[in-house]
Amino acid sequence: MKLQKYKKGSGYSYSQGVFPTVELLLNRPESALEIIIHSKADANEGILKIKDICKKKNIPVCINDRQIKLISAKDNCYAAGIFKKYESELDKKTDHVVLVNPENSGNLGTIIRTMAGFGITDLAVIRPAVDIFEPSVIRASMGSIFKINCRYFDKFGSYTGAFNNRTLYPFLTDGKNAIAALIPEAPFSFIFGGESSGLPKEFLHTGKSVFIPQSKNIDSFNLSIAVGIALYAAFSKR
Amino acid sequence: MKLQKYKKGSGYSYSQGVFPTVELLLNRPESALEIIIHSKADANEGILKIKDICKKKNIPVCINDRQIKLISAKDNCYAAGIFKKYESELDKKTDHVVLVNPENSGNLGTIIRTMAGFGITDLAVIRPAVDIFEPSVIRASMGSIFKINCRYFDKFGSYTGAFNNRTLYPFLTDGKNAIAALIPEAPFSFIFGGESSGLPKEFLHTGKSVFIPQSKNIDSFNLSIAVGIALYAAFSKR
Repeated sequence: MKLQKYKKGSGYSYSQGVFPTVELLLNRPESALEIIIHSKADANEGILKIKDICKKKNIPVCINDRQIKLISAKDNCYAAGIFKKYESELDKKTDHVVLVNPENSGNLGTIIRTMAGFGITDLAVIRPAVDIFEPSVIRASMGSIFKINCRYFDKFGSYTGAFNNRTLYPFLTDGKNAIAALIPEAPFSFIFGGESSGLPKEFLHTGKSVFIPQSKNIDSFNLSIAVGIALYAAFSKR
Repeated sequence: MKLQKYKKGSGYSYSQGVFPTVELLLNRPESALEIIIHSKADANEGILKIKDICKKKNIPVCINDRQIKLISAKDNCYAAGIFKKYESELDKKTDHVVLVNPENSGNLGTIIRTMAGFGITDLAVIRPAVDIFEPSVIRASMGSIFKINCRYFDKFGSYTGAFNNRTLYPFLTDGKNAIAALIPEAPFSFIFGGESSGLPKEFLHTGKSVFIPQSKNIDSFNLSIAVGIALYAAFSKR
């Protein structure tokens, strides 16, 4: 394959590093197009696992140091995966995280890793939003992106139209219910706004709005921190 | 001043953006050497505040688009501060966060912002570690770095030697006590390892080790997420 640096319009993207590439192969082998290994990669557990799965699933493996450098933009990357972008459906029966206009790829990846850590598998993203297949998102997710279902919506209303069976919990710094007292009704959707301005005011009248107590020393918590605290608080009561 | 891109050995560093620069002036005016404003900056609340404080505190303000671009490496930065690096002492009576070998500047800044959000003002960092005055740390902290005290130690033992009056809570994925049951004794020190491998095993025998429950889908939570969950869990019980 003739590879280029990732662009939003590309039909494929890259997993960078041994760990995320193993996750790609374990969770989305049907999307993996080719795996590239560095000539200096040791025959460690991860590399052996990559070779083993590729053999079983008939996925080509190449040793190509120049390509791996192009894909990873790093010197110490020993494996990378090229995969076809895919779409996934959300499950009506499970809990969701909904991100309205997230802007930062590192945060998005960290949120996906956090969701996976709490066993939440369904993520809705309302546009405009950062591209979930940006390699920096995949890297920050540590490859757990391949374990979750993500679907984009053009409007928040399109999401609630498609998933109307659930309790909505929008998180705002001036929400009405303290997170500590919250026992979420399943299936729930935890809704968070983007980094620069959070959710618009009208979300105060959507479902049951929630706030995370904070000191006056900050405007708000970082988005990924807010998601982490919210999911912890919800699951610590189950 | 003749400015250069930030280096670890520099005696000064930069706040990038209006909000972090206001925080610098409000919290560490004695360290501010000079403020730079972009010629296209509107006379908004933040810029007026900057000019007002600088006038009162006799801090020079310059309009210099080339310097601001050099400092910020961004096009939409309207104010920046140059400040002399400073050292601070930790308070023996208050709760601490202790980071052992943190590697990522974005995480360090996010952790500082999270600490400020919970009203924790004292941070110990055990070397080798990322440099707290890197502009990317200051940016991720949203300027809340200027509200906290941070001190570096060459060894964990130097920290416990200087602060021996407290309960130590090291966080490990195989810690002995579940975070949900933890009611920390004040003053406490919450201790976290670096991004790549967490705390070494011997911390299982230091103070009262704690774990945050997680699914098998991930190796561990991101460091900043772990700190956010830990502080939330501690403060939600107070």
